[in-house]
Amino acid sequence: MINKNSPVGVFDSGIGGLTVAREIMRQIPNEKIIYFGDTARVPYGSKSRETITRYSRQIVRFLQAREVKVIVAACNTASAFALDEIEKETDIPIIGVIKPGARVAAAVTENGRIGVIGTEGTIDSSIYSRYIKKIKPEAAVTGKACPLFVPLVEEGLWEDPVTDEIAKRYLTELLDIGIDTLILGCTHYPLIRSTVGRIMGESVSLVNPAYETARELKRLLGEKGMLNDEAARLGDNRYRFYVSDAADKFKRFANSIIKYGILSAEIINIEEY
Amino acid sequence: MINKNSPVGVFDSGIGGLTVAREIMRQIPNEKIIYFGDTARVPYGSKSRETITRYSRQIVRFLQAREVKVIVAACNTASAFALDEIEKETDIPIIGVIKPGARVAAAVTENGRIGVIGTEGTIDSSIYSRYIKKIKPEAAVTGKACPLFVPLVEEGLWEDPVTDEIAKRYLTELLDIGIDTLILGCTHYPLIRSTVGRIMGESVSLVNPAYETARELKRLLGEKGMLNDEAARLGDNRYRFYVSDAADKFKRFANSIIKYGILSAEIINIEEY
Repeated sequence: MINKNSPVGVFDSGIGGLTVAREIMRQIPNEKIIYFGDTARVPYGSKSRETITRYSRQIVRFLQAREVKVIVAACNTASAFALDEIEKETDIPIIGVIKPGARVAAAVTENGRIGVIGTEGTIDSSIYSRYIKKIKPEAAVTGKACPLFVPLVEEGLWEDPVTDEIAKRYLTELLDIGIDTLILGCTHYPLIRSTVGRIMGESVSLVNPAYETARELKRLLGEKGMLNDEAARLGDNRYRFYVSDAADKFKRFANSIIKYGILSAEIINIEEY
Repeated sequence: MINKNSPVGVFDSGIGGLTVAREIMRQIPNEKIIYFGDTARVPYGSKSRETITRYSRQIVRFLQAREVKVIVAACNTASAFALDEIEKETDIPIIGVIKPGARVAAAVTENGRIGVIGTEGTIDSSIYSRYIKKIKPEAAVTGKACPLFVPLVEEGLWEDPVTDEIAKRYLTELLDIGIDTLILGCTHYPLIRSTVGRIMGESVSLVNPAYETARELKRLLGEKGMLNDEAARLGDNRYRFYVSDAADKFKRFANSIIKYGILSAEIINIEEY
């Protein structure tokens, strides 16, 4: 039986969505979380809409089998490609990372020029642009795919001259057109936020969809009277992690991002869902 | 019915194996090739033995359904993790890229110090070392995982200061221990062969398993009397390409590597095999 004390389901292609899970832990620490990272099929960013939709559908079935009360698609590519279709098929709310980020970017820009960085899939879909223009039709949105950022982050080069050099190449054209707002449109990017911020300069506002999504989740659960009201008990295992492959590597990386202690990451065969 | 004029099956996690297909086209141009690139689940290098074995088994079933006479596992990770098990289950010959590369490295080294670069999966498996030591027990084999090389190659940075810088970091420890032979233990690496060669210097021999594997295939087919003896006809489509996702992107990349003209790349759902 799903009720207000049921867990929140969060999924991503791998580890990137942990930046969203971390924000949920910070902003609504009372919530239980079931996280799924699709490490056997990562990355999603360079794959097609059909493939990402099939993968996302399997994951939603897995999370529903664990009786989550709401699902957060903590992956920009999955949010861009699969969310509209999967929302229709599912009887619990599903939140993506794109709408919350788009809304805040539309609100904070002053000159109307907004940049979006993300994977090829997210950028080619133009989905941030479509959402932003619904709210602010006069906005000019420029997307830039940054395919090397994910491997650089996963290699741990968060502060490194190589990451600086690659970031400069990717970001120069956004600087040249004078954007005043930049959306970090991939859940890995908050981890190189300071590199991106240094290159863009202080006059450009960085929008972090991970943060905005956790706020949106809190608002939604509050509105529906679905915020968890159980008192946390000592020894409770509030956060459960599942992956489709290589659990040890996931745990190591997760423990470098999330300081709450990831006790276990269990491997499941997602192709069976 | 499988006979000498049946095609050769070649598979890889994605595009890397095209360097092996290219060598087969050069060395035995009369052979027909069916190539499968698992672009929906790429990369293999960071995934586990169990997952890679399951994926490889599905691909072997797909290629056998197309009646190939021999299969080339043109992927170091699949060769390292899955080949021994899959060979036992299959009634046609399967060649991997590791044994041919290991054999040549053991033959060309003079000081017995051999380096291997590859993905995390290949290096952690120590499989090159095991094969080399069977042939040359006194050899000292040092492996070094280079996880950023694949994304750099796929981003097209084959000749670039960033690739130079990353290559220097990865290769310094191999230079320091005085290897005289270096195996390019990932099928993407022949594309940055000149960068690696420049850093290692002229006294280090580079071994390209793609080249050695095509030689091995030619030898094996010759021994078994299975070399294709049909005359090529104008308009023949000797090379067929299949992928599990994003065929257009595959075609673009493939056409930059292979100059024989890739007419089509068909998408199939590999999870059904």
